Formats: sequence, structure tokens, C-alpha cells
Amino acid sequence: VVTHEHGLPATVVQTPDDRLASPDVPTLLFYGHHDVQPAAQRDGWVDDPFDPVVRHGKVFARGASDDKAGVLSMLEAVRAYHDAGQPLPCRVRMLIEGEEEIGSPSLAGLIDARADDLRSDVALVCDTAMWDYPGQDHPPDVAITLGLRGLAYFDLRLDGPSRDVHSGVYGGAIANPATELARTLGALFDDDRRLTIPGLNDRVDAVDPQEQAAWEALGFDEHAFAQEVGATLAGEAGFTTLERRWSCIACDVHGLWGGYSQPGAKTIIPHSAGAKVSFRLPASVEPTEVERAFRAWLEARDVGGCRWTVTQLGLARPFRMRPDSPWIEPVRQAVVDQTGRPPVLVREGATIPVGPYLQQRLGLDVLFVGFGLNSDHIHSVDEHIDIDRLHLGARTLARLLHEFGQTKASDAKG
Amino acid sequence: VVTHEHGLPATVVQTPDDRLASPDVPTLLFYGHHDVQPAAQRDGWVDDPFDPVVRHGKVFARGASDDKAGVLSMLEAVRAYHDAGQPLPCRVRMLIEGEEEIGSPSLAGLIDARADDLRSDVALVCDTAMWDYPGQDHPPDVAITLGLRGLAYFDLRLDGPSRDVHSGVYGGAIANPATELARTLGALFDDDRRLTIPGLNDRVDAVDPQEQAAWEALGFDEHAFAQEVGATLAGEAGFTTLERRWSCIACDVHGLWGGYSQPGAKTIIPHSAGAKVSFRLPASVEPTEVERAFRAWLEARDVGGCRWTVTQLGLARPFRMRPDSPWIEPVRQAVVDQTGRPPVLVREGATIPVGPYLQQRLGLDVLFVGFGLNSDHIHSVDEHIDIDRLHLGARTLARLLHEFGQTKASDAKG
Repeated sequence: VVTHEHGLPATVVQTPDDRLASPDVPTLLFYGHHDVQPAAQRDGWVDDPFDPVVRHGKVFARGASDDKAGVLSMLEAVRAYHDAGQPLPCRVRMLIEGEEEIGSPSLAGLIDARADDLRSDVALVCDTAMWDYPGQDHPPDVAITLGLRGLAYFDLRLDGPSRDVHSGVYGGAIANPATELARTLGALFDDDRRLTIPGLNDRVDAVDPQEQAAWEALGFDEHAFAQEVGATLAGEAGFTTLERRWSCIACDVHGLWGGYSQPGAKTIIPHSAGAKVSFRLPASVEPTEVERAFRAWLEARDVGGCRWTVTQLGLARPFRMRPDSPWIEPVRQAVVDQTGRPPVLVREGATIPVGPYLQQRLGLDVLFVGFGLNSDHIHSVDEHIDIDRLHLGARTLARLLHEFGQTKASDAKG
Repeated sequence: VVTHEHGLPATVVQTPDDRLASPDVPTLLFYGHHDVQPAAQRDGWVDDPFDPVVRHGKVFARGASDDKAGVLSMLEAVRAYHDAGQPLPCRVRMLIEGEEEIGSPSLAGLIDARADDLRSDVALVCDTAMWDYPGQDHPPDVAITLGLRGLAYFDLRLDGPSRDVHSGVYGGAIANPATELARTLGALFDDDRRLTIPGLNDRVDAVDPQEQAAWEALGFDEHAFAQEVGATLAGEAGFTTLERRWSCIACDVHGLWGGYSQPGAKTIIPHSAGAKVSFRLPASVEPTEVERAFRAWLEARDVGGCRWTVTQLGLARPFRMRPDSPWIEPVRQAVVDQTGRPPVLVREGATIPVGPYLQQRLGLDVLFVGFGLNSDHIHSVDEHIDIDRLHLGARTLARLLHEFGQTKASDAKG
């Protein structure tokens, strides 16, 4: 057990060399996380989210899919060799984090401090989804996720009068922080839902035509995708839904508060109002740049003299992997072996800070291969994972260890 | 005790004729209300808002000023004659309402149904404030309020996906109700804080130059007015602060809700978001017209397919009284007698539905004369009233009964 000096508990499973097939085998750095999003049964869960329940072949619990399934699959893959009395076909290091859902604030420091312990030939991250959307005419495909968006997340608070005041007496004459907050958030977008913060849109790279073609071949049914969660499609004009999810900046309001929101009418100008707002960033957009631009834009807005408190709650860099990595082929072989179909090459809209860290700080190719589904309700109520998919993950990773073992690290090192 | 058929409890104090100075005296219809705005000690009150406490010569309680002070002043004025063994100088009918703070939904029907019982020569409403602003170089002036704004109040709810979903997976691609709500509320105003709903601004009458001059003579210090509640001035471009409060439409957001607003970051697209929004309306703008225009404007907005639930929580017509009413002179005399200064003629930005009801349904001149102060924290925490002002109100109203008694109803009837 290694304990980071800032209190981050981390475990490195250092497999003893005498369990290896050969001292020359490559070293795989596995990453997963054990922390989860907030959850409470009163949010609408059928069961206590922190007391796992098995129903209809699925485990229901917060974190069941994101990301305890990933961690468990790898542990089971390693155990399979042990239980079968077989040596491990490659060296395995495991980095299990507990701060992923809050943006991995300590991870970069940990990786820098323990770079020697983490030295490897390739990294494998099990924290992404399989490719499976409504309307797909075959079972879910295992996906290699070559891109992930970065994140810049902010808590905004806008203060007006020193207390709630009567809107009849003051309405129209003084700045109302709830109104000014709405005006500000609304002004983030033009009528085409394009961000209005100067400079940011210029930073977004066009998608490579080859990657575009791969996305088109996926047969993605965008309407079924939205309908599955009862939603309607809407986004920046001029882009496809996959582009809006994978290669555009997405700005979302996650929460709003302020004033009176109980039943009935209360005629006040509230003393303050607030919002949670984030920006998801494609590979070419740096979160530090977004924070600077957003703060400058907020400061320049006319909010009638109300006062901002802007708290940054997490910055994470976007991730992009070269599609010609030699480590993709062993993944392809393992996946074909277990599912009969090759993996698809996709991106994801979500954010996993470890990707850029491992890539840039350890110089590793990072393969994102996971066994979740978008229908697992991750970050939502009644999160779950099929037990069959836990088995698929464990079997595929066991096979992947074998395939990696056949790959010459010296040839494959990117 | 009279009970309205819809359950509204109302009391008519029918003074027996044998207590009158003469059967020919005019009849005064007094109006006040006993209901109050919501309040809870957890909002920040020093004491339980529903257990009155006297501190430093003030009564602290929800409703102490708005409007129990008005009702109590009139009861004490009537009692003064009784305790002194004197006949009442005019007939007094009292209409004490319990639904004022929710927009008096039953009052019009009650007035129509009991028009015979309410027949009077003039109406007096004690539910407005004295004229007293920071920076004023003399004590508060008693004010006759010749105009009150109407109100159209709405609860808005915007529904998107059927459950909260992961903003990484869906962000940028589906309509986010919190974002769309903010965009919609923000779009209510242009950069000059002028309402953008078509047709409404055209309905606002210019202020009569004579009334304008009276307002300018008030010596209103708008900066001190805002500073008193720690606020900053902001409103529709091109108008003074008194115009913004008295003769412009004011649209305010009273509350915002939706998604995650606890500490920390949660990366969801919320399934719904909502707001409380109202419009304060000057004399020429009808609330039914505003409701129609607002609903049409909302329906025409692009909210990416999210679904509105718009609930109207109250419509109240604006009020305006002729400045040449013969009933103003007796008020002037009573006020000069008690304070040594004449009353000022003002408007107010707040809404009191009873004004237009009494004016239009009973054909009465309606005099708004109250003894509250804007510093009484009405609709806010720690509402209070000075006991001295309760006495001033009772004495002034007692004198006013005398002055009304000297006024020939047949001459004065407007």
C-alpha cells in the first residue's frame, strides 16, 4: 500500500516476477477508479444505492458500472491465471484511484512522484463504454476510445441585495441576481447554440476526414440515442450529433438555485442566485484557457452591479490517442477471440483525466477499453451492470494479457 | 360573520346606527388584510416569525407591518370613539381579507356578491407605506398612493430527458432544460433591460407631466434607496428609478431550481428546471394581456424540444386614482392635524388587487393611506413595526373619521 503525502490512498499491485511467464514480457499499467458520483435513495433509487442488490441478472448500486466493473474485471482476469496455476503472460501494475469523479486533483502529482513504480510499456484504462445504441442490429461492440473530452467545471454565485427584498417595491429598479444570472447564462449561447465567449470556437479542430468516415460507418442512430432517455436532440448548429458529443465544446448548466422555489408565489428579489456550469472540451482545447476566457467574459458582462463568486471545481485536459498505435492490434485479437467481432474505434464525450496524465507524464500509449453500456444509468439513479458483462470483461482482459504478452515491447513502444 | 360560498372567511363589522353622530354621515369602507407572506425562522429571523416579540419599541413578527398594522390602526381608531363615549362621525364598514398575498382570487366575487353590504361613499385602504427614504431631511411623510402596479405571476417548469443523464455522454447533443430555461429567461430582456415580448412595451403609458413634476419634488435619493438594502441600481434604459418602480413594467425572477446545487461538482444534465417569474404592470397594462403575450412568446421560443408547464399563480389589475378626488382634502386635513405636514401624492410599485375591485365594482374613490415604512422588512426576514407608528396610524385614522364626517357625501361622490 502506497500512501500519497496529500492523503490519497493508492494501491500498486506489484506482481512478483516469479509469477511471470518470462522476465522479458511487456509491462501493462492498468487504471480504474473506486470513487463514485453522489447518490441517495431519495433521488428515486429503488434500493439503497450503497447496498448492492442483484435483480434480473444485474447488480444495482452506485458505481456498479462506473467504475467498479472495470476494476473487478481486471482483478478477475489476473486471478484467472493464478487460480489456473498459470504464470502471468505480462507484468501488470494496477493504479486504482479514488478521486476520478472530482477531477483527479492529486493524480498528476502522484504519477510524477511515483513515475518509477509506474514505468510500463502501455496503459489500459477500463472506464469507458461498449458501442451499443438503440436501433443497433447486432450485440454491443467492444470499443477502443481514441478521444475523450476535457472538462472545466465552475460554481457560480451572484450576489445582489443584502437580503431578499419585496419585488413590488424594488422590482425594475435594482439588479435582481436571479434575473441577471439567467441573462448571463443565456448569453453564453447565440441563437444557433454556439458559444459566444470570444476565442473558444476558434480553438476547436476540425475532425480528420478518416476519423469522420469511421464515425459514419458506426451507423449511429441519433434519434434513438435521444429517445432512450426521453430527450430531444439540440446542439450547436452545423454539426452532427456525434460531432457535438465528441469534437465540439459542450457547455451545460448542471444546477440552478436561488430565491423561492416552493409551491405558490413569493414576490421577492432574492439576495443571491447560483449555478453549476461546465464546459466539455475536445482534444485541442485547453481547460486553463477556457477558465481564463470564461472568467474574463463573466467580468465583462453587465450584471447591474451584482457580485460574482466564481469557484473552479475541476479542470481536466482532453485526451486523444494515435489511431496507428501498435497496441491496438493485440486488443483487436483479444476482442475478436471473445466476441467474434473486431472492436470499433470511437471517441467519448466524457472526461477521464488519467488519459492525458499517463500519455504525457509517462509517455505511454493509453488504450481505453471498457465494458459499460450507456444504458447502465451511470451518474444517475439505479446504476447497474449485467453480470454477463462482468464475465465478458474479465474473459476479454484475461485474453488481452495473453495477447499483450505476445507483443514485443521494444517493437511496440510508441 | 359572513362566509363566502367558496370558503373565504370574511368579516363585516356593521356599526349600529345608534352609535353614529347622524344618520346622514358618509359611509367609509375600510380595507385591510390579515394574511401574510411565507416565513420560517430558518430563513434567518432572530425570533419565531409567528410569535411576536417587542424589542426597542418595535414589534417583530411576520405581518407586523404588512398588514396587521393597518387593520389594528383602524380598529383602535374606532375603539377610541367607543372608549370616549362618543358617537362615530361616519359609518364604517370593514372588509378584512385573508387572500391578499396570493393575489385576492376570491375578492372580486365576494365584492360582487355582497355589493349591497359594501355600498359606501369612499374606500380607505391601509396597506401602503409612508414616504421615507434614506437621505430625507425630515420625518416620514404620510402618503396618498394614487397608483399601484398590477401583477402577473407564473410558475415555469421545463422538462427535458426523463431522468438526469451524464453530461459527458449527452452534453452538447440533447436539450438541457436548465440551460434552455436560462436562455429563455435571459431572452426576456435586451441589452438595455427592455422586455422583448412583442407588444407589451407599447402598452405602457407615458407619465403625465404634472405627476412627473410631483415625483421630482419628492427629492427621492435613488442611490440611498438602493444602498439601504445593499443593492445596486439597474433597470430599463431611459427611465428614472421612480419611473422604473411606478410606471414601467418590471419583470423579475423570484426563484430558480433544477439539477444539482449542493457543494461540489455533479456532471448531470438535469431532467427538469424551473423558475418563478412575475411582471409588475403600470396602470395601462392589463394582466390578462400579459399572460397571453407571455405564453405565446414562450411557445414560440426554441428550447430544443423541452416541454413547458406554465402555471399562472395570480393576475391582479393595476390601480390608478384621479388626483382631483374630493376625498383627498379630508385626508390632507387629518394628516396635517396629526403630523404638521401635508400628505405627499405618490404611486407604489407593489400590487394590491382590492384597489381596482373597489373602484370598478363599487364605483368608489379609493384612498390608499398607510403607515408602514419601506424599512419595515415586509416580505423579508425580521419584519417589524414601530409601536409609535401604530399610535400615529390610530390617531390619524381617528381624526380622518372626523374629517370624513364633515364631508358631504352628496358633494364628494366622484
